[in-house]
Amino acid sequence: MTKQEQTRAPRQNTTASSEGCVVGIDIGGTNLRLALADTTGCILARHAASTADSRNAATVVAAIERGVEELMREANVPRSALRSIAAGAPGITNVDEGIVIATSYLMGWRDVPLQSMLESALGIPAIVDNDVNMAAVGESWMGSGKNVRDFVFIAIGTGVGAGVVLEGRPFRGMGWAAGEIGYMLVPGVSSEPTEHGAPGALESMVGGEGIRETWLRTWSQEKTSLPRELTATKIFEGAQTGDPLAKAILHQSAQILSYAIYNLSLVLNCPLFILGGGVGTHPVFFEATQKALEKWASRSHLKLSLSALGAEAQLMGAVRLALDLAHATPIKDK
Amino acid sequence: MTKQEQTRAPRQNTTASSEGCVVGIDIGGTNLRLALADTTGCILARHAASTADSRNAATVVAAIERGVEELMREANVPRSALRSIAAGAPGITNVDEGIVIATSYLMGWRDVPLQSMLESALGIPAIVDNDVNMAAVGESWMGSGKNVRDFVFIAIGTGVGAGVVLEGRPFRGMGWAAGEIGYMLVPGVSSEPTEHGAPGALESMVGGEGIRETWLRTWSQEKTSLPRELTATKIFEGAQTGDPLAKAILHQSAQILSYAIYNLSLVLNCPLFILGGGVGTHPVFFEATQKALEKWASRSHLKLSLSALGAEAQLMGAVRLALDLAHATPIKDK
Repeated sequence: MTKQEQTRAPRQNTTASSEGCVVGIDIGGTNLRLALADTTGCILARHAASTADSRNAATVVAAIERGVEELMREANVPRSALRSIAAGAPGITNVDEGIVIATSYLMGWRDVPLQSMLESALGIPAIVDNDVNMAAVGESWMGSGKNVRDFVFIAIGTGVGAGVVLEGRPFRGMGWAAGEIGYMLVPGVSSEPTEHGAPGALESMVGGEGIRETWLRTWSQEKTSLPRELTATKIFEGAQTGDPLAKAILHQSAQILSYAIYNLSLVLNCPLFILGGGVGTHPVFFEATQKALEKWASRSHLKLSLSALGAEAQLMGAVRLALDLAHATPIKDK
Repeated sequence: MTKQEQTRAPRQNTTASSEGCVVGIDIGGTNLRLALADTTGCILARHAASTADSRNAATVVAAIERGVEELMREANVPRSALRSIAAGAPGITNVDEGIVIATSYLMGWRDVPLQSMLESALGIPAIVDNDVNMAAVGESWMGSGKNVRDFVFIAIGTGVGAGVVLEGRPFRGMGWAAGEIGYMLVPGVSSEPTEHGAPGALESMVGGEGIRETWLRTWSQEKTSLPRELTATKIFEGAQTGDPLAKAILHQSAQILSYAIYNLSLVLNCPLFILGGGVGTHPVFFEATQKALEKWASRSHLKLSLSALGAEAQLMGAVRLALDLAHATPIKDK
């Protein structure tokens, strides 16, 4: 952890110390973010740190411990008021056993007992879940999925993943891997299995890294006046200004994403799809996907929405799960 | 209704008249089948009739009424012992309101209040559901899905549909159309929307009618020694005897079905897929699909099973739902 910063910490009079409070955590490959909330879900303080230098689980837990202390000090809440903690990790997570089964190569976690590590470090009940599921919970609680029984939250950043909410609750699947749509097979993607660690079929056409690689592979001075090294969102901006290669790649990606959304709507028959993540929430990409979906409008009456919580979705989902855990856990007599 | 026949009616001593019994019904485009069961689910009598001549909803309900009388007589059970009835219809069905929203062109039903029609005709509580969902319930109760929390039952006959069982219960979707996978978009299918009434993208490559049409379209005397007019199952038999065109069509269909199953496994993360229906349970097609799925084995540890109940799956599912309804409905004082 090299850089530590506190962001936005409204010092308000709250009932935190009497009724207790919770901490929600978003563990990412680049950043660690924490939020302290009271029992009504109101955020009391925030904390952020970098995970870029060390992503070892013990190091991350130590950073969380320091972050929690910071939050309590910042919000002027006694440590004894802390009821529970919830952490979202970027990987397949066994929620019942509290184990992060596997993250991507970037983190390299395998069977990390994160729940018990957090409980030992902090002395309060903890819950852990996949970060995209947490984001879906956040959107369900106070975002674009509010009051919608069944919906799918699709996170598109470097890669692609989905959080499935059925009957108001995250549906995680028997192997905790429901919504792993990055590997989905649709027209226009490779139907050959990819190597372990490599992006999935859908991901390689729709994820930020896949879009960047497609650009690199197809780039030539004859086709575009834009530079060879370009991120997905910069490619979208190029498409908006009329660059032919950028437009072709944008439309191809949007079309392939529309196939995946249509397939999901056939299987789950849910009325709402929420796009999240830095690539998924780019307005140019969102609009192109919405347009591509019109093709299926006669069969599938689905609504595509932008994430209302944006980068906050995971953190708010974590706060929600921590609150649920706090409500389910009787307060111990001191 | 031209032909009426009773099939297998074991005359056993049962507790039917004291504890009551239920009727399960499978309404198809060709046949109407009824089964009388005691409260333990043991079948007391069966009845079948043709629906080929008249598929009008009132006519079908009248045929059900006659069938129920036949069953009671056959099993020597008084009419007053009948507790509830459940009917599966080949279309999208609103289970809460008891309305068959839409069936295929063959039946042509639109917004048929089947539950209230049955309740009026028979004077007992009724429940209606989609027939593939009922088959999935049957497999979950006493078939290949027994003791499996989450699985997908895929019915492949003329067309293709799926019944999704999550957490032990049928998952029907907010528009009652979950599992409508006949329209799924996978590599190798057309990505253009089909006209209303026409087979869906997946269905046209994997369903019996689609396979037959592919055969017709690609048939030539140079490619095969088999006749031009051939059903899907006859094409599978031709593949087994080494006919090159039949083999090519079998493998193409099996591969495309394997893509759809893989996609379902990504979304739902369920460990089991059950193939049902006359085409889906053909051993040659089942084996080819199983082989095609091996390609994804490293990522997806799913099991493909044959329907254990075969043509009985829908009827047994109907019996199960009727029993659930009977248990949920207090017996009226006479």
